[in-house]
Amino acid sequence: MRMYDIISKKRGGGELSQEEIQFFIDGYVGGDIPDYQASALMMAIYFQGMTERETANLTMSMARSGEMVDLSSIDGVKVDKHSTGGVGDKTTLIIAPMVASLGVRVAKMSGRGLGHTGGTVDKMESIPGMKTALDRETFFDIVRKVGVSVIGQSGNLVPADKKLYALRDVTATIESIPLIASSIMSKKIAAGSDCILLDVKTGSGAFMKTVDDSVRLAEAMVSIGEHVGRRTVALITDMDRPLGNAIGNSLEICEVCETLRGRGPKDLTAICVELAANMLYLAGHGSVEECRGLAKGQIENGGAFQKLREMVAAQGGDVSVLDDNSKFTQAAVRREIPARKDGFLHAMNTEECGIASVELGAGREKKEDPIDFSAGIVLHKKVGDRVAAGESLATFFTSSQEKCNEAEKLFRTAVQISAEPPAEIPLVHARVTKDGVEYSVPKG
Amino acid sequence: MRMYDIISKKRGGGELSQEEIQFFIDGYVGGDIPDYQASALMMAIYFQGMTERETANLTMSMARSGEMVDLSSIDGVKVDKHSTGGVGDKTTLIIAPMVASLGVRVAKMSGRGLGHTGGTVDKMESIPGMKTALDRETFFDIVRKVGVSVIGQSGNLVPADKKLYALRDVTATIESIPLIASSIMSKKIAAGSDCILLDVKTGSGAFMKTVDDSVRLAEAMVSIGEHVGRRTVALITDMDRPLGNAIGNSLEICEVCETLRGRGPKDLTAICVELAANMLYLAGHGSVEECRGLAKGQIENGGAFQKLREMVAAQGGDVSVLDDNSKFTQAAVRREIPARKDGFLHAMNTEECGIASVELGAGREKKEDPIDFSAGIVLHKKVGDRVAAGESLATFFTSSQEKCNEAEKLFRTAVQISAEPPAEIPLVHARVTKDGVEYSVPKG
Repeated sequence: MRMYDIISKKRGGGELSQEEIQFFIDGYVGGDIPDYQASALMMAIYFQGMTERETANLTMSMARSGEMVDLSSIDGVKVDKHSTGGVGDKTTLIIAPMVASLGVRVAKMSGRGLGHTGGTVDKMESIPGMKTALDRETFFDIVRKVGVSVIGQSGNLVPADKKLYALRDVTATIESIPLIASSIMSKKIAAGSDCILLDVKTGSGAFMKTVDDSVRLAEAMVSIGEHVGRRTVALITDMDRPLGNAIGNSLEICEVCETLRGRGPKDLTAICVELAANMLYLAGHGSVEECRGLAKGQIENGGAFQKLREMVAAQGGDVSVLDDNSKFTQAAVRREIPARKDGFLHAMNTEECGIASVELGAGREKKEDPIDFSAGIVLHKKVGDRVAAGESLATFFTSSQEKCNEAEKLFRTAVQISAEPPAEIPLVHARVTKDGVEYSVPKG
Repeated sequence: MRMYDIISKKRGGGELSQEEIQFFIDGYVGGDIPDYQASALMMAIYFQGMTERETANLTMSMARSGEMVDLSSIDGVKVDKHSTGGVGDKTTLIIAPMVASLGVRVAKMSGRGLGHTGGTVDKMESIPGMKTALDRETFFDIVRKVGVSVIGQSGNLVPADKKLYALRDVTATIESIPLIASSIMSKKIAAGSDCILLDVKTGSGAFMKTVDDSVRLAEAMVSIGEHVGRRTVALITDMDRPLGNAIGNSLEICEVCETLRGRGPKDLTAICVELAANMLYLAGHGSVEECRGLAKGQIENGGAFQKLREMVAAQGGDVSVLDDNSKFTQAAVRREIPARKDGFLHAMNTEECGIASVELGAGREKKEDPIDFSAGIVLHKKVGDRVAAGESLATFFTSSQEKCNEAEKLFRTAVQISAEPPAEIPLVHARVTKDGVEYSVPKG
């Protein structure tokens, strides 16, 4: 078998066999196939696409290129969740305890934030003492005893994806549905859960800017999951505005606590109920409607919050900051950002809000940048709200006035105030299962 | 400027600016742009193509990446000729003396053979004493005094093409019209002549298998030439059968001599008159019809053969082998290849004939393989000829019976004898100038 022939076949629109895909992944990870042949193949795939079978084969070849986590020693149905990245997205820390409090097992590996998007691991580390790097046995033990554990990505998971993604990133071959889908799914499959819930973000703060593109990506990922025997459902959720009110690490933990206590922002609560309901559905707890009821119940009866406390305690975190959020280290500088005119908050560019929060210290531009856990933004007005000139749109939390000045400039370009209220946008645009797509708002 | 953005722009179908192309070529030749980005760009160009302007800019950037030969110290119009490679193609050594004997200057750098195609430089070196590696001043001096010199490619000509071609060769990005056209034309432009005649081969022995593809390549190359101020004409000539009767180095030199003495094969003579006439036309010697008459005259009056003798003498070659071809070293083994049945010679696969001649020792599979100058094939029957069982189709010349056996197997698969004569195919399918395409046989 020759890599040349594989490139040539794909260039001509042919379907690569499992053997050809395996030959490529083995050769590329092993260093026998050079980057320049891999990048030519990636570009050919960009133009010619891949069939569902090819995409599933690529995913499995990548998943098997490194450690495959074996969760079989943990009883019960294990459900994983993946979000394609967002601003102010703290849903994992809300829904994982929600479903775990109903007996679903969640053994989740999460990422760190980069650029305008935050990461669950960073948010967790704002809790004093919280450990996110656990060895496999400790991680499994917590899942067995508590039902849920969230840690940082560890071990040699999917080295093929690490190498290929880095190459695609510098050769303009990221934006290919089968390549994005296989990259995400290979990591979820290697992580070992039985079922996978995908939260595909769409809108200004997301990688996929349109609902149609997001649905296509979701369909590709659901197809892969079902092809390889993992039940998979995807929700297309809105990222045209930040989720909830808080952006920034300990600020978001406070919002997680509020939401689990039933006092959270309406949009965040609603989306968490939808996500949790679908995880419960995947685990076989009834219809989505029934699961929705179960999920809400765990907020109302305090079971979900109690489960978060147990997980934090098991991972060495200081539970007292969850019970009393004022115990978090407070930011040295606070600034209110008043509206400059009357009207309706018409739009809030999520990506720009994310960048403003990075400017305040809540995120990192480069992998090695430090994070200020107390920094960030709390929004007082959301898209659709009426605002009066002088009223505070948001509070900034940071360590210096200079950072506030820079962030305010960015934030003000992100926010648009108009005389007319904006059109309503659903929080969940669509749901994709192996049976097809259901749109929240019927498509024109 | 970032290479990433250049790849991304081309991937999206955009037109690259001159600055972007220059940035790429400079960076790639200089080692700042890695192979994996270059191969991604090549694949994007394969799919998205290039405009005429882009192709001309790429060609000039490549041409300027190394030495640009300056022929301005040589008086008169300098005309170059390029063939896209064929089997038994000895036209350069016939037409260069033909046009030089009429005052057109030919300062030509030629290549060596590789795979199934032969190379002019190898053919010349079968003449004892003939030098094909001359320094620039000696080369120019011969062109000034004799009017013509043909040498091997030398100096640091178009390093960008060398590097890019090697990359394209292993990443399945050879077959792109703008990339082939710019590769060929960058070398012709760097070689310094005022006008360029292109001989684009089409058919089984050629890189371009169909007339339509050949015309598209010819149009791209003529467009480049005219864009950068070099008068350019292309002929699409047939390579569905070998040209002339001889395949092999000294065997082809004998055929060159016979043709220049007016005793050559009809097909070879006719095509050489067409090629020479178009070189004369480019140099301003009248209409193509008038130039055809001039070209024929130089065969009839012996002027062309005399010019070949002068060039060989000037380059140190032994002229006596031209005057008496029996003085060439003779092959140790000869074998006649008899027809196995009666009928018409229906087809002769040029590529397979070429491979058979390599098997006999006339060519090389790898760059460093030695060549047996006396080895090769002389055809006695051409496509369209009537043959009787037992009649010799060809004579093989080589050093051992084993080589003969292997070559005969290949040759017999290349030859097809049928009851019906084949359809006639024109030797020249089309002529491409800046004004358009003229087909020899009107297109259906």
